[in-house]
Amino acid sequence: MKVLTQATVANFGPGFDVFGLCLNEPFDVIRIREGSRLRLKVHGFRYKVPEDPLKNVASIAALRLARMVGAEVKFEMSIHKGIRPKSGLGSSGASALGGALAMAKLLGIEDRQRIIKAALEGEKAASGSAHGDNVVPSLFGGFTITKSLSPLEVFRLDVDFRLVVVLPEIEISTKRARKVLPEYVPLKDAVRNVALASALISALKDGDIETAGRLLDDHLAIPYRKSLMPWFDRVRNAALESGAYGVSISGSGPAMFALGEGLEGIGKAMKEAFEDAGIKADYLVVKVGGGAKCSDV
Amino acid sequence: MKVLTQATVANFGPGFDVFGLCLNEPFDVIRIREGSRLRLKVHGFRYKVPEDPLKNVASIAALRLARMVGAEVKFEMSIHKGIRPKSGLGSSGASALGGALAMAKLLGIEDRQRIIKAALEGEKAASGSAHGDNVVPSLFGGFTITKSLSPLEVFRLDVDFRLVVVLPEIEISTKRARKVLPEYVPLKDAVRNVALASALISALKDGDIETAGRLLDDHLAIPYRKSLMPWFDRVRNAALESGAYGVSISGSGPAMFALGEGLEGIGKAMKEAFEDAGIKADYLVVKVGGGAKCSDV
Repeated sequence: MKVLTQATVANFGPGFDVFGLCLNEPFDVIRIREGSRLRLKVHGFRYKVPEDPLKNVASIAALRLARMVGAEVKFEMSIHKGIRPKSGLGSSGASALGGALAMAKLLGIEDRQRIIKAALEGEKAASGSAHGDNVVPSLFGGFTITKSLSPLEVFRLDVDFRLVVVLPEIEISTKRARKVLPEYVPLKDAVRNVALASALISALKDGDIETAGRLLDDHLAIPYRKSLMPWFDRVRNAALESGAYGVSISGSGPAMFALGEGLEGIGKAMKEAFEDAGIKADYLVVKVGGGAKCSDV
Repeated sequence: MKVLTQATVANFGPGFDVFGLCLNEPFDVIRIREGSRLRLKVHGFRYKVPEDPLKNVASIAALRLARMVGAEVKFEMSIHKGIRPKSGLGSSGASALGGALAMAKLLGIEDRQRIIKAALEGEKAASGSAHGDNVVPSLFGGFTITKSLSPLEVFRLDVDFRLVVVLPEIEISTKRARKVLPEYVPLKDAVRNVALASALISALKDGDIETAGRLLDDHLAIPYRKSLMPWFDRVRNAALESGAYGVSISGSGPAMFALGEGLEGIGKAMKEAFEDAGIKADYLVVKVGGGAKCSDV
């Protein structure tokens, strides 16, 4: 059994903890088969991904799902990590989902809510925190509005556009990115995000990517998280000056993304802005992804 | 010149200070013509509407617009109030818009931003506060997302459905309804409203009124305003038990509205719940309105 799970952009501007976009690449590939003992092999980003099956997010998610249904399964799993860990592109979410989905296929489980629950539990066990806004779009594909994880209430928008994703070679601790957020926010800022997010959904439904891009502002998370990313304004301005409609942070960062015409040029300008700030960076022009795919090997 | 402006439902569930829905009825009709002196005549709800042209919201809005463009105009105006003042259905917003629009027609002004500005200034002068979320949908018709009033940034959704509006014979001071709101709200509640509002827009775009109705919850305003409306839960439950998909407050109340099948029955149940709480009430099954209409008399 082979499962492919794609990278995601969580938050997507004004949709903190709600919006998610699935990307066609990068992605992880997980293979699983029943075996006589628990075994795990990791390819790609090995120095960052534990190969102990009791510490790896994918195998833990698989074990959790099996435990949920009372199944005793030993398996051999291989993971080809294509998504750079801790980059802000939902790497651990994709691996957790991949592990849970692989086990689901093995056991004939179809219940999405249960699969997502196992993935989130796996993520939580492996890294201390779970991110529904990565797991959900990686499963469903397209653009997702997650209203609730339990019960699972997801609204999926079928969108089709390109964007540029920029990956700086620096890490932001997701835990710190959470900690820097206040418990209370100005009502005025909540209203502004409701307006932005609602208008963004309207624009996406109309396929109006330029308007959607101009609605990528956020008043709930980024104003606080910017303190962890002193390069944010510089990179954002570089993108806007190169014709981006809008720019934001992917998940809790450090990856950033932009919509616009001439994505190659925008990516280059953002990469250079990172490098002016002393941080190496790569960029990637990607399309919206279709969600997790399973197949017999 | 004759201008018809319709009642509106502001906030519409999770869209506090952002969403607005135009109703096909009730409505105000304003007639204007140049005259030798300033004159105003009010028909309907006269005991609640000042007939002094320097105190009436419609004539003030008209005067403001004239002043904005440096025009000196004397006019005779008549207002047929169809919308009950202080009911929560945007009565003063509709009158202010009507006055501004009537003057705009007289002077050949087409700039919507300016017309809205005059209407808001008129409302503010007449009542101490202005409500863009009533004026905007009353002008544009359909369902509106107001991202910004200045510059005017409105997203309009072309929707078509029926709803029931219930008007209790009691008044809620808009000023008090504002005052009861906190300056800061839990980030968690902001996130919940972003999710609800975004999903609601998605459902409305799909024409899925049942889903839209189930997304009418609000965590930003109603939890605080409920203290001014101790009957809220009773009326809401009566509606839900009669098959409503969802119920909420129109603007800052006291009017309430519901979506659902069998709107007559739902309206009746809500009216009875009000009356059980000792408050007389009427209900009205209405459709989405098309926005302000101007014609030569």
